Amino acid sequence: MNNQQLFEQIIRKRSYLCVGLDTDLKKLPAHLGDNVEAILRFNQAIIEATSPFAVAYKINTAFYEQYGTAGWEIMEETLKCIPADCYTIADAKRGDIGNTGKMYARAFLENLNFDSITVNPYMGKDSVEPFLKTGKTAIILALTSNPGSQDFQYLKVGNSYLFEKVLETATTWGSVDQMMFVVGATQTDMLNRIRTLIPDHFLLVPGVGAQGGSLQDVSEQGMNSRCGLLVNSSRGIIYASSDEDFAIRAGEEAKKLQEDMEILLTNHGLIPGTS
Amino acid sequence: MNNQQLFEQIIRKRSYLCVGLDTDLKKLPAHLGDNVEAILRFNQAIIEATSPFAVAYKINTAFYEQYGTAGWEIMEETLKCIPADCYTIADAKRGDIGNTGKMYARAFLENLNFDSITVNPYMGKDSVEPFLKTGKTAIILALTSNPGSQDFQYLKVGNSYLFEKVLETATTWGSVDQMMFVVGATQTDMLNRIRTLIPDHFLLVPGVGAQGGSLQDVSEQGMNSRCGLLVNSSRGIIYASSDEDFAIRAGEEAKKLQEDMEILLTNHGLIPGTS
Repeated sequence: MNNQQLFEQIIRKRSYLCVGLDTDLKKLPAHLGDNVEAILRFNQAIIEATSPFAVAYKINTAFYEQYGTAGWEIMEETLKCIPADCYTIADAKRGDIGNTGKMYARAFLENLNFDSITVNPYMGKDSVEPFLKTGKTAIILALTSNPGSQDFQYLKVGNSYLFEKVLETATTWGSVDQMMFVVGATQTDMLNRIRTLIPDHFLLVPGVGAQGGSLQDVSEQGMNSRCGLLVNSSRGIIYASSDEDFAIRAGEEAKKLQEDMEILLTNHGLIPGTS
Repeated sequence: MNNQQLFEQIIRKRSYLCVGLDTDLKKLPAHLGDNVEAILRFNQAIIEATSPFAVAYKINTAFYEQYGTAGWEIMEETLKCIPADCYTIADAKRGDIGNTGKMYARAFLENLNFDSITVNPYMGKDSVEPFLKTGKTAIILALTSNPGSQDFQYLKVGNSYLFEKVLETATTWGSVDQMMFVVGATQTDMLNRIRTLIPDHFLLVPGVGAQGGSLQDVSEQGMNSRCGLLVNSSRGIIYASSDEDFAIRAGEEAKKLQEDMEILLTNHGLIPGTS
């Protein structure tokens, strides 16, 4: 799925919700058991319950890699459960020299066939190019949602912050539709500055929910003419209940966010109002 | 293995060579076949031939991830082939928020039991801490060997380059023996500045050989009282021959580097001369 098709799904579903499958065996409902395969059963149920309200799924690769080959297999199987009308993101935060970057691009964008992958920009252009060359999307870390974003991303480079230099430089490496940027929902005071630099790109926005970001603030500051936002919620949805009703409750939480998003899309003139 | 034990192996083997297992099925000798398991047979033979001359092995995870579960299994099996007197590095370049970082730390430093992992610093302190807490070593990217290192790592932050800020800041996160830093062999003109900031840390130095870095320059500028260097060669060793003699030739190339390193260690007064 490309960005234009993603926008069409956003309009159709009246949602720009991305559900993060940060699935941790230790947090699963007890009745699913403690075998690693419980992760797949959990993911299947979560995807089924939330996919009417979500346009994207983000698989956090770390949660699968910790189980080695078994975890990798569950990641592959989880991908097969995601409906074709949903955009897929490998939240892998990779980045390495060109020769190695090609292998990561092959792993995630060709073999696993994700629509996109999160990429760390620290190593520069040749570490990002292999992802761009696949025809899929590189989602480049700009300003992340965690406390450590203060350490380097906010360093002053001339009159800009480092993350602004990353935006300015990375946008020269490819077209608007070849890349997105990660901007944490906890960083809404910077969204205006970011939209001045990159008015047209999609932003992947983690940090709503457990990390404290506000959907309303993100949407008011960050929405553009193609919505331009994928707002991710992980823990707030997938761990809404730790009982047998976990999938129902996850669906309800996703629906709540979708309803809020529908209002915000309407207010922004992207979909007609329902009244 | 910790840094002190690594230093003891350096003295014992008169070598600070790290062999990079960037094993690409397309570059293997034809007689090994084109099945993904050929990678394991290749790695076994390379390790056997080079381990008398090497103190460390670096597994570039991208090359294994591209084969999904089969590749992950080969990574696990390759690790079992590495002798206990060799230091192991997961060249994974990971880095994510604390909650996710813990999973990566578990995957590589606990489950796979690598001695160390390469880590991207862009997301700051809480993205690196989970690795430090394992008691193993985080090898933080500072100044990489690729052309893209120019894009951000050399940005001026006040009177420093960004990579110097990374060094200054990261060293406050843990002890000398909890971290190493990646400094590309193509960046020897900066090694003096780097050693002023971090006189005591080990550096992992890729880029000798195929990427054009000089062992002599790196060693003269970068060696400290515990050697403080792990110089990596990947393609120059493992693809020394594409025929049936590939392991013998790899061993010869490793031996050549070891002999050069023995001279450099002697010149630096770390081992007694042989004359």
